[in-house]
Amino acid sequence: MTRYVVGHQQPDTDSITAALAYARLKQAEGVDAVPARAGEINPESQFVLDRWDAEAPTRLEDAAGETLLLVDHNEHSQTVAGAREATIVGVVDHHRIGDVQTGEPIHFRTEPVGSTATILTRLYDDAGVEIDSRTAGLLLSGLLSDTVVLRSPTTTEQDRTVVQRLAGIADVDPEAYGTELLQQKSKLGEKAPREMVLADFKEFEFGSSSVGVGQIETVDPSAVLDQRDAVLAAMDEITGERGYDALVLLVTDLLDEDSTALVAGDSGTVAAALDTAFTDREAFLPGVMSRKKQVVPQLEAAFS
Amino acid sequence: MTRYVVGHQQPDTDSITAALAYARLKQAEGVDAVPARAGEINPESQFVLDRWDAEAPTRLEDAAGETLLLVDHNEHSQTVAGAREATIVGVVDHHRIGDVQTGEPIHFRTEPVGSTATILTRLYDDAGVEIDSRTAGLLLSGLLSDTVVLRSPTTTEQDRTVVQRLAGIADVDPEAYGTELLQQKSKLGEKAPREMVLADFKEFEFGSSSVGVGQIETVDPSAVLDQRDAVLAAMDEITGERGYDALVLLVTDLLDEDSTALVAGDSGTVAAALDTAFTDREAFLPGVMSRKKQVVPQLEAAFS
Repeated sequence: MTRYVVGHQQPDTDSITAALAYARLKQAEGVDAVPARAGEINPESQFVLDRWDAEAPTRLEDAAGETLLLVDHNEHSQTVAGAREATIVGVVDHHRIGDVQTGEPIHFRTEPVGSTATILTRLYDDAGVEIDSRTAGLLLSGLLSDTVVLRSPTTTEQDRTVVQRLAGIADVDPEAYGTELLQQKSKLGEKAPREMVLADFKEFEFGSSSVGVGQIETVDPSAVLDQRDAVLAAMDEITGERGYDALVLLVTDLLDEDSTALVAGDSGTVAAALDTAFTDREAFLPGVMSRKKQVVPQLEAAFS
Repeated sequence: MTRYVVGHQQPDTDSITAALAYARLKQAEGVDAVPARAGEINPESQFVLDRWDAEAPTRLEDAAGETLLLVDHNEHSQTVAGAREATIVGVVDHHRIGDVQTGEPIHFRTEPVGSTATILTRLYDDAGVEIDSRTAGLLLSGLLSDTVVLRSPTTTEQDRTVVQRLAGIADVDPEAYGTELLQQKSKLGEKAPREMVLADFKEFEFGSSSVGVGQIETVDPSAVLDQRDAVLAAMDEITGERGYDALVLLVTDLLDEDSTALVAGDSGTVAAALDTAFTDREAFLPGVMSRKKQVVPQLEAAFS
């Protein structure tokens, strides 16, 4: 029975590299595991695949009837299409506990660390499987990307230790390589406003409310904020199409380590959640870099 | 912040010993952890506590506002009262994935093995904390109890390895000690029918259906089945009080390694789920010993 190892929709680098690394570990244990993805490869992830000479995971269009190992997420609003009709046999993740339920006991492992790559490094060690240079490079990329080169408040001591170890195996300087990655992340290029909003986007079900939260991590927030009216129009359009109660877009400044939030839908509840006030649908959030830790729990509490 | 380590309602030996062992591990890591329980100590567990000179976990009557580490379960229908108003910061379990959701990432670890004790032994090793003789005895008791001395179909190779190791530390013969435990488990004594049904009882939410499943593990099924009319009346009473769609009682013969099922409520769906037919609300289930593996997934599929 083939097991697809798959990350969330709108995959980021941690989702892509986790699928590759976890599939390799499972293969080493004799499992017929195939790395997969639930969406397009973003430019940062493509850079990483090229850098470490790795093939992209298979695009899984419809998971109905398949057997899945989920990485980097554990809620149905973020899973590949058809996952509700699939059999989920494992989870490795570093996000909040979502709404996955199973009929039988499975391996389910989440830890409050900076990346899925951090946990996978531990799983290789637990299984006594060697981490080769390519796998180390992929895992290092997922870890540095998700923690914004260890600057995000989600970063733990364990992440720092793992970075040193993986960088040693991959034979790169983590700071220099991290800076290269950040530049990729910032390549907003000539993206249309709608693509900007949806490039790194997650949906959440909070009680009966449905909320979308996008994030753009960049060294140049003005590239987004200079076209704020067009971005807000795209947000309104998406909110209407998908019936969200609210949509929040975080424009995160990687150098200043803060964010500007744009809002569509129920801005009052969002403002209360984030303890801020919106002026012209825009609010400055000092010190906010982590959607997962500094935005999602607060929105959940306010919307549930 | 005190963290209560607590197992499910109607605690069995694995729940009680897991609370003690996990709290000790957390204490060794500097956490203010208190072992707790969500119900009365059953005779087998009392025997284990006496045998290893351990104090019973604290009775937690209402967990609202508290901080919890759940062991041996991960669904709200089985948690201590008030758990929905508590903060759940960790889970160690070997059952199906239930309906616990959190706002923030936590340590959540389930594995498809025979007991929570099996996973906890690994967690001690991962943390580099020594397992003392008493803790080994407690964990061994949880493991042998939950796997019916390694005879249950839930038993894995890992369980067998861990039993040998714990028995060595605790300095007991696992077969002989297991036999002693089974005798405790079989002490139905002069229990009233209602107590028999509820002694080891779990509630499940399957979609919009609510189903109770009790299990009596015994070397002498006739002690229960000789009073089947009184037991069925107690089952009807409980089903009515709690508004269950169905209630199944498994009377498991530890020597013959099979079960007799009694049913209240929607017996048609239960019969279809278990691929059997009820005659006078009773059905024989050859080879069935595990509620978790051979009954709950089947009921879930039929009722959801």
